[in-house]
Amino acid sequence: MSQSSSLATGLRCLSCGETFPLDPKLFVGCTACMTEQFQAPLDVTYDYPETGEGLLPDAPIQGLARYTPLLPPLADGLSMGEGGTPLVAAPELASWAGFEGELFVKDESRNPTWSHKDRFAYTTISGALEAKAKAVVVSSTGNHGAATAAYASRAGLPCIVLIPSFCPPAVQSFLLAYGAAVLVVHRRAASSVIGEGVHQGRWYPASTFTPTPTGPPYGGEGYKTIAYEIWQQLDRRPPGTVFVPTGYAELLHGVWKGFRELRDLGLADSAPLMIACEPDAMGPLREALASGANTATVSSQPTIAYAIATNVNGYRGVLAVQESGGFAIGVTDEEMREAQRRLAYAGIWAEASAAASLAGLRKAVAGDLETEGPVVCISTSSGFKDLALGERLAPEADGTWEGVEDALMRNYGIVL
Amino acid sequence: MSQSSSLATGLRCLSCGETFPLDPKLFVGCTACMTEQFQAPLDVTYDYPETGEGLLPDAPIQGLARYTPLLPPLADGLSMGEGGTPLVAAPELASWAGFEGELFVKDESRNPTWSHKDRFAYTTISGALEAKAKAVVVSSTGNHGAATAAYASRAGLPCIVLIPSFCPPAVQSFLLAYGAAVLVVHRRAASSVIGEGVHQGRWYPASTFTPTPTGPPYGGEGYKTIAYEIWQQLDRRPPGTVFVPTGYAELLHGVWKGFRELRDLGLADSAPLMIACEPDAMGPLREALASGANTATVSSQPTIAYAIATNVNGYRGVLAVQESGGFAIGVTDEEMREAQRRLAYAGIWAEASAAASLAGLRKAVAGDLETEGPVVCISTSSGFKDLALGERLAPEADGTWEGVEDALMRNYGIVL
Repeated sequence: MSQSSSLATGLRCLSCGETFPLDPKLFVGCTACMTEQFQAPLDVTYDYPETGEGLLPDAPIQGLARYTPLLPPLADGLSMGEGGTPLVAAPELASWAGFEGELFVKDESRNPTWSHKDRFAYTTISGALEAKAKAVVVSSTGNHGAATAAYASRAGLPCIVLIPSFCPPAVQSFLLAYGAAVLVVHRRAASSVIGEGVHQGRWYPASTFTPTPTGPPYGGEGYKTIAYEIWQQLDRRPPGTVFVPTGYAELLHGVWKGFRELRDLGLADSAPLMIACEPDAMGPLREALASGANTATVSSQPTIAYAIATNVNGYRGVLAVQESGGFAIGVTDEEMREAQRRLAYAGIWAEASAAASLAGLRKAVAGDLETEGPVVCISTSSGFKDLALGERLAPEADGTWEGVEDALMRNYGIVL
Repeated sequence: MSQSSSLATGLRCLSCGETFPLDPKLFVGCTACMTEQFQAPLDVTYDYPETGEGLLPDAPIQGLARYTPLLPPLADGLSMGEGGTPLVAAPELASWAGFEGELFVKDESRNPTWSHKDRFAYTTISGALEAKAKAVVVSSTGNHGAATAAYASRAGLPCIVLIPSFCPPAVQSFLLAYGAAVLVVHRRAASSVIGEGVHQGRWYPASTFTPTPTGPPYGGEGYKTIAYEIWQQLDRRPPGTVFVPTGYAELLHGVWKGFRELRDLGLADSAPLMIACEPDAMGPLREALASGANTATVSSQPTIAYAIATNVNGYRGVLAVQESGGFAIGVTDEEMREAQRRLAYAGIWAEASAAASLAGLRKAVAGDLETEGPVVCISTSSGFKDLALGERLAPEADGTWEGVEDALMRNYGIVL
């Protein structure tokens, strides 16, 4: 508890004006004027200074525009204040993972559509406006589509989103809310349909559609800002190692590029190891790295981590791992579920795919991870996008003290 | 398009190193080294300066701790970087609402549990730790419960959340994710059960339980920071009018208190009018204001705005409206649905209750709103908390060009 610098002095009744100390806590409103008909709320009082000058800090420029020099051209009026997501200290998660150093979670669910993809969409739709695109198209399992739809709508561009049939109902209504034309199309077919629309000059692609994922070149630039922010949030120090949920590895590479720039610009004296965290069910990046190939294709297997499920890797991932001296690691569905639970207990409710990074850290520590300096796990997205959303419901209790006591005991083992 | 200050120069193949200009856009990866087996991604290049000093801005202190002097004592290590939410310029929403001035939306879905309630929970759980509470209890329809559960879990405090049966399944799994003991209990009964637990000294209350809502005194202090942020984001100017979704009016009063402090501290030369936006179905604050009473009770009626549905007003609302010279306005379910759609088209997907503020602005403009200076609508929470979540699903299309063309035409009226 740090109380030294608060100017709070006590409580005052908003109706009769009676004053009370800050302690003991009063929970029933003002005890001086309360009646059966009306209970008055209490208000905190302060020892205000004569003038407020210097009392409140300056606000930074909001959104990615604060990094304009190191980004592709950004469209005016398009920003929704994306980025600037908090770096949350997580000592309890470090203990759980068996990691003895400093651990932070970069919570990307704090973006406009509640995932890291907003950074990608902002730079990509800026590019679409620059190219005078007539319409935007995206193939997505959810987050990428929502971010694209939101920014396209702000830009006044029609947006077509092609989704697979396993996209959860909650995510489908999320995508439709932004006014996009959303269609369920088989994923492999989506790539060739997009290729055709792009070839005909009708659509501007906001996602990859080549057989080996290439990705729109502007998108990953948005992800660089995650590296800039982490460096700033660590008081202009780079972390030692960064764990990243990885599908096509556009996020992994974008964050890596940002750290590499900071090092090359003389702003950091090192760059972190980048650890790609793939679903164990499919590991095309691990396969490519093991075989020394640019690209690998593995067999498709089911996983709850639908946002990062791919059977072909992106070449960017190979580069990020090799250049940074990191590695790729596979995490099982069970390991992601457990990491997801632990993240929520620390206040961050993430979808299973987003918890791949924390699951990866725990596995890497068990495998003798060597790292100097703080570790950052990137949590990409909110638990509202999880496949299991709405499956777990709360039990009912009779509305009496005894009823609640009994229900707490039976359902949660809580003894009052 | 503002391109002047970007240092981007072109594109470079990540595999063969071939360079390309930024225009025309290349979407298929590198055309110099592409084969059927492998397409290489392109990377943006920059004209980097010799040194990066001065290139990146400083980071502000994250979380509400930057306002420590004007808040009750805050617990160490509890923050998740709450607050600091963007103020999004919304000229297209101003047009839609018929408002000719500057309009901004304060997007509170960018908090740790995706609603404004995190500000309330951070200050309230700080108070619980100060009071050495053994457990926390909250009665909530969702957002308040989730924020309390998340902060209580971080603080290591058991948390009991009592919810009504109409709480959506997605929100129930959201609440359960944080490890809280969640029970479905009739709402009126919840208040007396909480009162009993508090009376017995077993529970620390994080929500109101008195017949007239009083609210924990520390909670609303967290909301003051919304006013500080808006003032900073408007370059240290106060807005003219602020529209706020209103149930018990803790948010309305907290934001008002913040603006009043800024004025009284000499940091702003005026304070805004505060407009309480209640569901039309129930309007206890309008009733209290009309009758000159501190409190009023109206009959309960159904509304989609379940997060702000109350048949009894909080006295804080009377004060905020009267002191600021504002008023209370009622908005129908249809008006909220339409405002919700428009907000999403502007990139902000909010639950129906959160859109009450924009709906209120439109109605107030139609009724000859008089205001000077910018208007701010507070959007309190994410669309993922909406009662209609998952109801709307995307249509299927055959995975061919013709199939997609046909489905776009039939379902969305889009002609390629």
